[in-house]
Amino acid sequence: MINVAIMGHGTVGSGVAEILINEQDRIADAAKEQINVKYILDLRKFDGLPYSEKFIDDFNIIAEDDEVKIVIEVMGGINPAFDFVKKCLQKGKSVVTSNKELVATKGAELIKIAKQNNANFLFEASVGGGIPILRPLVTCLSANEITEIKGILNGTTNYILNKMIVDGMDFDEALKLAQENGFAEKNPAADIEGHDACRKICILASLAFKKHVYPEQVNTQGITNIDLDDIEYADNFGYVIKLIASAKKLPNGNITANVRPTLVKGDNILSSVNGVFNAVSVTGDAVGEVVFYGKGAGKMPTASAVVADVIDCAKHINARKYLYWEDSFNSYVENFDEECILYVCAKSNNYNELFENIISLFGEDISMIKTKNNDGIAFLTKKELESKLMEKINLIKADEIKVLHTID
Amino acid sequence: MINVAIMGHGTVGSGVAEILINEQDRIADAAKEQINVKYILDLRKFDGLPYSEKFIDDFNIIAEDDEVKIVIEVMGGINPAFDFVKKCLQKGKSVVTSNKELVATKGAELIKIAKQNNANFLFEASVGGGIPILRPLVTCLSANEITEIKGILNGTTNYILNKMIVDGMDFDEALKLAQENGFAEKNPAADIEGHDACRKICILASLAFKKHVYPEQVNTQGITNIDLDDIEYADNFGYVIKLIASAKKLPNGNITANVRPTLVKGDNILSSVNGVFNAVSVTGDAVGEVVFYGKGAGKMPTASAVVADVIDCAKHINARKYLYWEDSFNSYVENFDEECILYVCAKSNNYNELFENIISLFGEDISMIKTKNNDGIAFLTKKELESKLMEKINLIKADEIKVLHTID
Repeated sequence: MINVAIMGHGTVGSGVAEILINEQDRIADAAKEQINVKYILDLRKFDGLPYSEKFIDDFNIIAEDDEVKIVIEVMGGINPAFDFVKKCLQKGKSVVTSNKELVATKGAELIKIAKQNNANFLFEASVGGGIPILRPLVTCLSANEITEIKGILNGTTNYILNKMIVDGMDFDEALKLAQENGFAEKNPAADIEGHDACRKICILASLAFKKHVYPEQVNTQGITNIDLDDIEYADNFGYVIKLIASAKKLPNGNITANVRPTLVKGDNILSSVNGVFNAVSVTGDAVGEVVFYGKGAGKMPTASAVVADVIDCAKHINARKYLYWEDSFNSYVENFDEECILYVCAKSNNYNELFENIISLFGEDISMIKTKNNDGIAFLTKKELESKLMEKINLIKADEIKVLHTID
Repeated sequence: MINVAIMGHGTVGSGVAEILINEQDRIADAAKEQINVKYILDLRKFDGLPYSEKFIDDFNIIAEDDEVKIVIEVMGGINPAFDFVKKCLQKGKSVVTSNKELVATKGAELIKIAKQNNANFLFEASVGGGIPILRPLVTCLSANEITEIKGILNGTTNYILNKMIVDGMDFDEALKLAQENGFAEKNPAADIEGHDACRKICILASLAFKKHVYPEQVNTQGITNIDLDDIEYADNFGYVIKLIASAKKLPNGNITANVRPTLVKGDNILSSVNGVFNAVSVTGDAVGEVVFYGKGAGKMPTASAVVADVIDCAKHINARKYLYWEDSFNSYVENFDEECILYVCAKSNNYNELFENIISLFGEDISMIKTKNNDGIAFLTKKELESKLMEKINLIKADEIKVLHTID
């Protein structure tokens, strides 16, 4: 029998407790070992539950109990999660977490501590909820050199954009609906400003490229500046707008990483990812592109990924399994100038001048459309180095210019 | 250093040899151990290769060499692959294979022999080429009870159907193009008659439900009876036709499994899987639906999956890792009568009588369309038990009737 402790009894934590306690036999079967939830750490009281006697409010009880071999951290945030996880690893306890903020900002440090103390540190649930992605990346794709990772990593923003695209709702209305349906937080900033997707691409890129990518190194843009007109013009060109997080290996060994609203071509599988679903596309030198798709959040999907890590820990309690990467240097993540097609929407009170101006800069044979109030032009550039395109875009005489990236 | 032998130097075998030999350092890094290809078994001569000295034509050299710890079987077919693999496992050698026919027909037996001899038996590459699917199914989804697996498991038929759908090619023309592009064999029967997809769903279902599903237990239909008209009528109803392989757990513990051309609704992610791509959808009680997508065949994708298994074997040469299931009993796979929507295309030289007949049997409010030569009706039934629907369909007075299943 292996004793475990759960730190945090919120949405994911209560799901983990329910699976481990209610599905004991099935879990024991999969782990080849009985898993016993010895403690649940939470400052709140949960009196009505069948497992109320397991609750404690003092972390030290877990830290000092040598019988507890696996600690599940599902509290979220950095404080006190970081200190607690660090102490557990230092005591040689294995840790399973779903905390993306913790892994994205402190991953390299915690992985090092886990290694030094011969403990497991697993965090499958931190990216893509229940979608298997981190473990396939390190095991099944181990014969590949990973060259690029891109995907839709945030269900809230995908839901909002999808409502705008399919139902013609405006941003505020779609956000309100997402909040009503429990798909967005009361304070939605972390989602709609791209921070959540940023943390996840940091974890994926760190694992794929073996060096820590920190959130502040990633260019991160949210979806708040996307309006229904952009969505309509994009549709007109055969694209849909998605919040795409991406990381790519550069020839010099560095990487480039971005989170930004992006026009995705209609025949790209990512354009078909609707509602709260997530999808992660991984490109390897041998395998080509593989995509992992599913619900990226939610109590039970995320809890099931945490429990799968616990099972894996229990099966290999003496064989060390940690997802591995090193710390990185400052200039590791860089802006990279590469060929791309940009979407540009320019507005001016002198339409004819604007038209002539754009034609003279970008050529006559570009895909373009007059904006709805006849006050501007939306168009796709030809494929060219981004720096060259930006030079031209800066020469457009317009009152207002919006530029978005595209992917085929 | 770990010595391995490769049996078979065809498309996949040569890819495996190239990765293991050319990418030695990267593989050693991933496996934490140098991997040395000691022998390549093939009756043919490959004199021009940089590793020509490794070729042998006598299997016994491999079987009798105790230094060879891992044997890679990429010969295909049952004979002599089955005997060779069996002997290797009996000698305690681990075996990695991409041979779906072998695993689908002899899996339970070989898994048992591997277990008895404390050897690994891994076969990630047997389903979905380089797409990670078997390992995620048993590890990442281990906290789930799997209830259903369905997918597009054959790239050749998906390519042909896609050419029919997108380019309006007829079946023969599309097959010819697939052959010209190397996506279909000269003798395409195994693909177009559904046998290849059948073997793969057998492996997936065996692993998900832990009992062997044999190919002859699965209702298997190919795509040869699908014509351009069906594709057009399906499109009219908002569906695309795909060859779908599926297996589902029944309330009585048995399963039901089918391979058949199926109308897939346009908003189902499987409808967006184009060209030679494959996709496998897995439904778990906690995680909901997750989908794995990528190229399901090809030299390097498949070879990279084989090599990943070799790396996994090498990392756990003393810890046993086999994908596990038991043998099954005769009635384990059954036909199951469940509610469904069927697509029916009925033709008659008396259109008006046919129309009245269908309306009287299925109601006035069904989706229907007159066939192109005004000689019949294509329609979607309402959702009802399949047996009830078939009773009604048998009452249609028509010269010709085609029935296809649908999924939402």
